[in-house]
Amino acid sequence: MASSPSQSNASEAVKRLPGEANTNFEDHRRIVLLTDGYSNPFVAKTAISLLRYRTSDIAAVLAGQTETKTAQKLLGAGGDVPVVASLSEVPDADAVYIGIAPPGGKLPDTWRPVLLEAIRRGIDVISGLHDFVTEDAEYRATAATSGSRLCDVRKNRFKNVATGQPFRPDCLRILTVGHDCSVGKMVVSLEVQRALQQQGLDATFLATGQTGIMISGRGIPVDCVVSDFVNGAVESFVRDNQQHDIQLIEGQGSISHPSFSAVTLGLLHGSAPQGLIYCYEAGRNEVKGLSSIPIPSHRELIRAYEVAANLRAPCRVIGIAANTRNLTSEEAGEELTQIRREFQLPVCDVYRTGPEPLVQAVKRLQEAVVNV
Amino acid sequence: MASSPSQSNASEAVKRLPGEANTNFEDHRRIVLLTDGYSNPFVAKTAISLLRYRTSDIAAVLAGQTETKTAQKLLGAGGDVPVVASLSEVPDADAVYIGIAPPGGKLPDTWRPVLLEAIRRGIDVISGLHDFVTEDAEYRATAATSGSRLCDVRKNRFKNVATGQPFRPDCLRILTVGHDCSVGKMVVSLEVQRALQQQGLDATFLATGQTGIMISGRGIPVDCVVSDFVNGAVESFVRDNQQHDIQLIEGQGSISHPSFSAVTLGLLHGSAPQGLIYCYEAGRNEVKGLSSIPIPSHRELIRAYEVAANLRAPCRVIGIAANTRNLTSEEAGEELTQIRREFQLPVCDVYRTGPEPLVQAVKRLQEAVVNV
Repeated sequence: MASSPSQSNASEAVKRLPGEANTNFEDHRRIVLLTDGYSNPFVAKTAISLLRYRTSDIAAVLAGQTETKTAQKLLGAGGDVPVVASLSEVPDADAVYIGIAPPGGKLPDTWRPVLLEAIRRGIDVISGLHDFVTEDAEYRATAATSGSRLCDVRKNRFKNVATGQPFRPDCLRILTVGHDCSVGKMVVSLEVQRALQQQGLDATFLATGQTGIMISGRGIPVDCVVSDFVNGAVESFVRDNQQHDIQLIEGQGSISHPSFSAVTLGLLHGSAPQGLIYCYEAGRNEVKGLSSIPIPSHRELIRAYEVAANLRAPCRVIGIAANTRNLTSEEAGEELTQIRREFQLPVCDVYRTGPEPLVQAVKRLQEAVVNV
Repeated sequence: MASSPSQSNASEAVKRLPGEANTNFEDHRRIVLLTDGYSNPFVAKTAISLLRYRTSDIAAVLAGQTETKTAQKLLGAGGDVPVVASLSEVPDADAVYIGIAPPGGKLPDTWRPVLLEAIRRGIDVISGLHDFVTEDAEYRATAATSGSRLCDVRKNRFKNVATGQPFRPDCLRILTVGHDCSVGKMVVSLEVQRALQQQGLDATFLATGQTGIMISGRGIPVDCVVSDFVNGAVESFVRDNQQHDIQLIEGQGSISHPSFSAVTLGLLHGSAPQGLIYCYEAGRNEVKGLSSIPIPSHRELIRAYEVAANLRAPCRVIGIAANTRNLTSEEAGEELTQIRREFQLPVCDVYRTGPEPLVQAVKRLQEAVVNV
């Protein structure tokens, strides 16, 4: 797995869309990930993903009091990246990234001292939470003196309305869609994109959530855009990247999610993908974080996605990405076989079995729909 | 047609939801509608609707230089409500309502003098535009001195995430859905609600747009809510009104609209209606305001709405509301007959032929799904 922002983005001048946050995190090479006590893979998913996809830019994980010495032992990713108890243990830190994604997005009060310490040292602070560091008077005043740059990845002023005009026909757009939140849509987009790149194709990753934005260097925090402008923000971002042959666009939420379906449809229609990769976590039957809300069947969801997508442009599900983290090896094998039979589509677990079936599905779609 | 805010709301203490704008416009009885030059029914739809549904609260239409003397002649609604050229002609005005809904929501610069005149006189200013009067330094400073209340109907800080928990089973929820924007979804909701009320049923209107909010006194400006919270804002509003037996919920946008489909789905899932009224404008085949985007067929849209709605809760389209304003009487008759045959559903034009078929459809659904 690559350890720095996508090669295809690194050398491009980063042009900001009107309303996009002015972020500089692609410069950071000695990042401290602030997780302080949280190691649950859902809450700490930002830290875990940054350790996987920007390993060489991460100096340390700041986790408070713990016996565990390495990121790999504490969070399951990042190899020998050290776990530290204090910022003073990282004298050359250039940024602190908030590594947690708590529901509701509020910053724990217990972090105020360490964030102020970072800011006083001139260290940049990057946060993906809804609770904005850039609107805290004390952080701002301290940063004004020290030169520390504060950035809220979710903060935006997108005010553009989507036009619905067609994109460049030879730009293939693949969107990951899910049966729920936190099933691996970002990971699947990244893994498929990287595999395509390694095979010599011009494929780029389009981030739509705080973690993806921190990994790739830019993106649209769609869940934080005013609803009238979600489709428009996504459309602008896609259009801004349509010189690439293939876009792997990170999905958000689920079209059936009682809380977030608006975000999901705005992203689907704003990006008008020709192909969808349906992502799910094996064993999950109820909506995560809500009380007793069943998730519809895969069949019902795949149909709903295709019906909704085709209102906007021709589109179909081209493959299924199963997250089998809760299954044994044998159960995973059975699951993949059974799903493959039921839906007659390529199926894989991008971590356990590799993304190749999905990569091939993308290439087949490219041949079918794009004039090469 | 009733001329004051819905009877069922007038006597209720208005309890605000967390994050809802603190508005007082149900007190206004001598409203001046500011339209200044705009009379196109799409741009001036707020003024026209206010003239229809709050006639006795409207003192005058402020339209700048014009020969036309009455609202009826200028805008097609409001009877003898006078058209004036200056605010000085209405000495007892208690509020100025911005009566236009321009795309993008920006306030024309030419209005600054008249708004300042109103504010200096202590007259309240109510605006439904995205361009907030409450964020204008000069308006605020002037209002602080005069006691004038400024209100931006679209301004909100909704931050609640939908829970997806079921509503009171005996509360029947009917949502109007459209094939495009500006086809009459608000009007249909209002007309059906009023007819049900007249027949002795406890039916309430739930506004979701600036015009509906100005008419009924409260509501959720869904297109101006951050996308993560749209479903939640709607859900809270519905739950807050579920003591009523029937809710007529104002739809927004269209599930196929390239720009606004996110808003539409958030509203659909947040309200979890048991019944939908499908609204369309006869003769419109392309999305209004966009360039050459065809609207899908009625069949495709009805299917898409039912597929999407049923992800959340059991739901079906119970009737069709045709807006036949562009047709002759004879053409309208043929249109209604043809649509009725094709879809085997009650069809009417609530203005031209009256809402009774839809009213009966609502009552039939109530018998079918609610334990009476």
